[in-house]
Amino acid sequence: MIEPAGGAVDVPSVDDAPEGQAVAWRHRHLLDVDRLSGAELELVMRTTDAMREVLARPIAKVPALRGRQVTILFYEASTRTRVSFEVAAKNLSADVVNIAAASSSVSKGESLVDTVRTVEALGADMLVIRHAVSGAPYLAAEVFGGSVLNGGDGWHGHPTQALLDLYTMRERLGGAAPAGGQVADVGQAADPPAGSQSVDGLLAGRKVVILGDVLHSRVAHSNIWTLTAAGADLWLCAPPTLLRGFEAWAGRGAAAGRRFHVTSSVDEALRDADVVMALRIQRERMSAGLLPSLREYAARYGLTRERLALARPGALVMHPGPMNEGVEIAPDVAAGVQSVITDQVTNGVAVRMALLYLLAGTRAPA
Amino acid sequence: MIEPAGGAVDVPSVDDAPEGQAVAWRHRHLLDVDRLSGAELELVMRTTDAMREVLARPIAKVPALRGRQVTILFYEASTRTRVSFEVAAKNLSADVVNIAAASSSVSKGESLVDTVRTVEALGADMLVIRHAVSGAPYLAAEVFGGSVLNGGDGWHGHPTQALLDLYTMRERLGGAAPAGGQVADVGQAADPPAGSQSVDGLLAGRKVVILGDVLHSRVAHSNIWTLTAAGADLWLCAPPTLLRGFEAWAGRGAAAGRRFHVTSSVDEALRDADVVMALRIQRERMSAGLLPSLREYAARYGLTRERLALARPGALVMHPGPMNEGVEIAPDVAAGVQSVITDQVTNGVAVRMALLYLLAGTRAPA
Amino acid sequence: MIEPAGGAVDVPSVDDAPEGQAVAWRHRHLLDVDRLSGAELELVMRTTDAMREVLARPIAKVPALRGRQVTILFYEASTRTRVSFEVAAKNLSADVVNIAAASSSVSKGESLVDTVRTVEALGADMLVIRHAVSGAPYLAAEVFGGSVLNGGDGWHGHPTQALLDLYTMRERLGGAAPAGGQVADVGQAADPPAGSQSVDGLLAGRKVVILGDVLHSRVAHSNIWTLTAAGADLWLCAPPTLLRGFEAWAGRGAAAGRRFHVTSSVDEALRDADVVMALRIQRERMSAGLLPSLREYAARYGLTRERLALARPGALVMHPGPMNEGVEIAPDVAAGVQSVITDQVTNGVAVRMALLYLLAGTRAPA
Repeated sequence: MIEPAGGAVDVPSVDDAPEGQAVAWRHRHLLDVDRLSGAELELVMRTTDAMREVLARPIAKVPALRGRQVTILFYEASTRTRVSFEVAAKNLSADVVNIAAASSSVSKGESLVDTVRTVEALGADMLVIRHAVSGAPYLAAEVFGGSVLNGGDGWHGHPTQALLDLYTMRERLGGAAPAGGQVADVGQAADPPAGSQSVDGLLAGRKVVILGDVLHSRVAHSNIWTLTAAGADLWLCAPPTLLRGFEAWAGRGAAAGRRFHVTSSVDEALRDADVVMALRIQRERMSAGLLPSLREYAARYGLTRERLALARPGALVMHPGPMNEGVEIAPDVAAGVQSVITDQVTNGVAVRMALLYLLAGTRAPA
Repeated sequence: MIEPAGGAVDVPSVDDAPEGQAVAWRHRHLLDVDRLSGAELELVMRTTDAMREVLARPIAKVPALRGRQVTILFYEASTRTRVSFEVAAKNLSADVVNIAAASSSVSKGESLVDTVRTVEALGADMLVIRHAVSGAPYLAAEVFGGSVLNGGDGWHGHPTQALLDLYTMRERLGGAAPAGGQVADVGQAADPPAGSQSVDGLLAGRKVVILGDVLHSRVAHSNIWTLTAAGADLWLCAPPTLLRGFEAWAGRGAAAGRRFHVTSSVDEALRDADVVMALRIQRERMSAGLLPSLREYAARYGLTRERLALARPGALVMHPGPMNEGVEIAPDVAAGVQSVITDQVTNGVAVRMALLYLLAGTRAPA
Repeated sequence: MIEPAGGAVDVPSVDDAPEGQAVAWRHRHLLDVDRLSGAELELVMRTTDAMREVLARPIAKVPALRGRQVTILFYEASTRTRVSFEVAAKNLSADVVNIAAASSSVSKGESLVDTVRTVEALGADMLVIRHAVSGAPYLAAEVFGGSVLNGGDGWHGHPTQALLDLYTMRERLGGAAPAGGQVADVGQAADPPAGSQSVDGLLAGRKVVILGDVLHSRVAHSNIWTLTAAGADLWLCAPPTLLRGFEAWAGRGAAAGRRFHVTSSVDEALRDADVVMALRIQRERMSAGLLPSLREYAARYGLTRERLALARPGALVMHPGPMNEGVEIAPDVAAGVQSVITDQVTNGVAVRMALLYLLAGTRAPA
């Protein structure tokens, strides 16, 4: 049994099955991060701590989800996210069914709703879905009787990525936050569990930069929520064509007490940053006229060692992967001592274990 | 241990390994339903009852096939059938190997016989095969040392689908059959096990309609056998171009005491029906000139709420999936209270568990 | 527990986990066979004997790799090799992750090094890699923290195939070697484990023929090493365009005491042979002008019953698969009594179990 990492939050013992546990978690699905209160974000972080302990064991397995079936239904190709969920589910002793939609009857024109109903009838208790259309996991959640986890939908969101990014920053920066300013309360959700803590202030005073194609990035969209919720001083940096609409969003965020800036100046963004997260540039954006050539993009916005020198010493380098090395990030930066990119991958397994675990304990209708 | 559901048929305990059990089952392979006697069909039904009980447990697993290797070799894309077999095998604790032929060395021109020999040499005890060529599973059975299960071959047959359809009708209609007429004896197979019962009369007096492209449907072909064997009053309904040859088949069936009619009149078919099974229309039939446009097909043969009103109140709506909603079946009918389409999917897992279980107990040469 | 098959080699008990065992094995990776000493080849053979015993059990599983994660990363389509590694790993109770590179983020342009780092961060302890580029597994081994197994790289090597071929010949010919000539010592590797035996002389005096496209065959390249190391009298036979460079290699081999000949005369090659291994002819070689038509190739170099009659009575017929029957090998020869082709497949599972087992006990840096 794993003891709670401390505090009043009820961190569950991950060696037992989730039934009968008093988990301070009230969601049936994980569709995005914007429904999570600060206290719930903190619960995810602490449960992830427990899962990191499990991963450090010689046999990194607990029986928590034994007999549960997790179906991974991906309508877009993916290695890391698909495998990360698969490994996470297997580490919890769940049975995993993989469905790659490109080679499935989905290509025969079956509707998403019918596919989800079929997946449930085949025995799935939990459904991880990735889809090119924003909102698809919400539709799936309307018909699926178990829990739906969003593995990335269109440009909309990628909540497990945002949570693993938050966990990685918390792990590296959490204990040494400089005194910071006001922290916004993100608690849309009423009634956070009594006695719980929150991530409020976790990143207070930390300057976090997201550099690249934020416009088309579900990773950026989910991260904006969690990072401002955690009190970060968030900067989005991209060519002007890829920042459309974010000025207005940043304005609304500032009005709500969040720190959220946009700029096309890499120098302004990187100066004294604590974290620099580079985003993948997708080649198909070129043809849409949104970007100059890859070479020009790399020259003007690529994260090089010279640019990184503008940030604070020891600033973290992050990337959600897969990387175009030499385009949005230089190879020596990606593999350098400040890079925590492989930590992100490992933390992704732990965060997904935590989420599957928390959701499995919550089978009552949301 | 699960007790027999009653009667003299020896329903095996599914909590034990199959070795050493006196299973009243004498087939090594499941290639089609036409080799199953009425008593054997009944044994499949009762064993499926036991598997439904297993599926209702908190942990839906029994160790019956522990250490057995089930290879699923599919030469055609499929979600539901492939996953259904995979889940069924894993629920029995078998090890599962998936081979999608499109991405395999099969594409390098290896013969089916060589592939099957290789699969066996790699350790497969049971082989589930789907192939675009009718008869391919029979060829596989000639060289494979274990048990072959037909997961669908060309237009020929889809025996597990017919058995799950029969099970679904039995579950919903079995206890309340109206007094019916004469029931044909389907027992080609000599020597049904002593003391066993049969499905004879199970659907006696029930009007069952298969609506759609019966000509190209392996589902229809296998269902014709089992449904007439169970005493149903079977009606096939389709455009005339898709009924070629069935008139003669129906005539031979009638001569053998089976009730089997064909018609192109939807009204005649649906009137007072107890079950309406709509078949998928495949778009490639259009180009072959066998069908008018999809819109015209939907208008003339689609299963709508108005047409369904011709059937008996509470008549069952079935579909083997995947559905083209709005073509062969209206969305409100597919999702309506009379629909048992998702039951079919769940019963499919249970039927396949039953068949794997029964076949595993029968390793002697057929 | 399985007792050593005899002799002084420390054959491990395969029923226990590998930790804490004194395995006479000093490699962290299996990249090719040329780094294996004669004593190490013998250890692989004996460990494979033990794995064959495991495969003969009713439940062919041992817990040796429980909790270990084996990732199978294949950049080329494959059925038999991929499934063979998967079954081998599962038989040792490892968790297996399959990544087919064609449908993975690899297609998004991620570098091999980044993919390997990601796979490790996702939890892989052992990595099996197949790649179209010769040397790719060596690059993977430079960055991967666990053990890398080469599942075939370009034209370079296919070490597990060579080891299963050697095992198959040892099993069939090992006990009855005719008195032979001088045997080369292949021990490049310094310090073979004290008290160990070697495969030296295992195939002494045996004439082994590799017939077909040796130029493009990684199977041939790895087999040249192990077969000459085991003392075989090795003959390569192919059209002259497919033997370029091998004359010189054979000359160097002879200078080092190895028996290694090349010829384009099928009669000369097959006369009195003990083993004939036919290689797959790949159709794309035709377009490169390296081969005449398939028909002409079959007529001049195909392994027919008539040609096989030139070999010794009972000579073994081998093929690495998948076969083009009727091209490089006649169907009646492939399925004849002298064929050990399916034994090769089964031995492949056992050899891969042995290698995974041996490598798992060796986690210290190479």
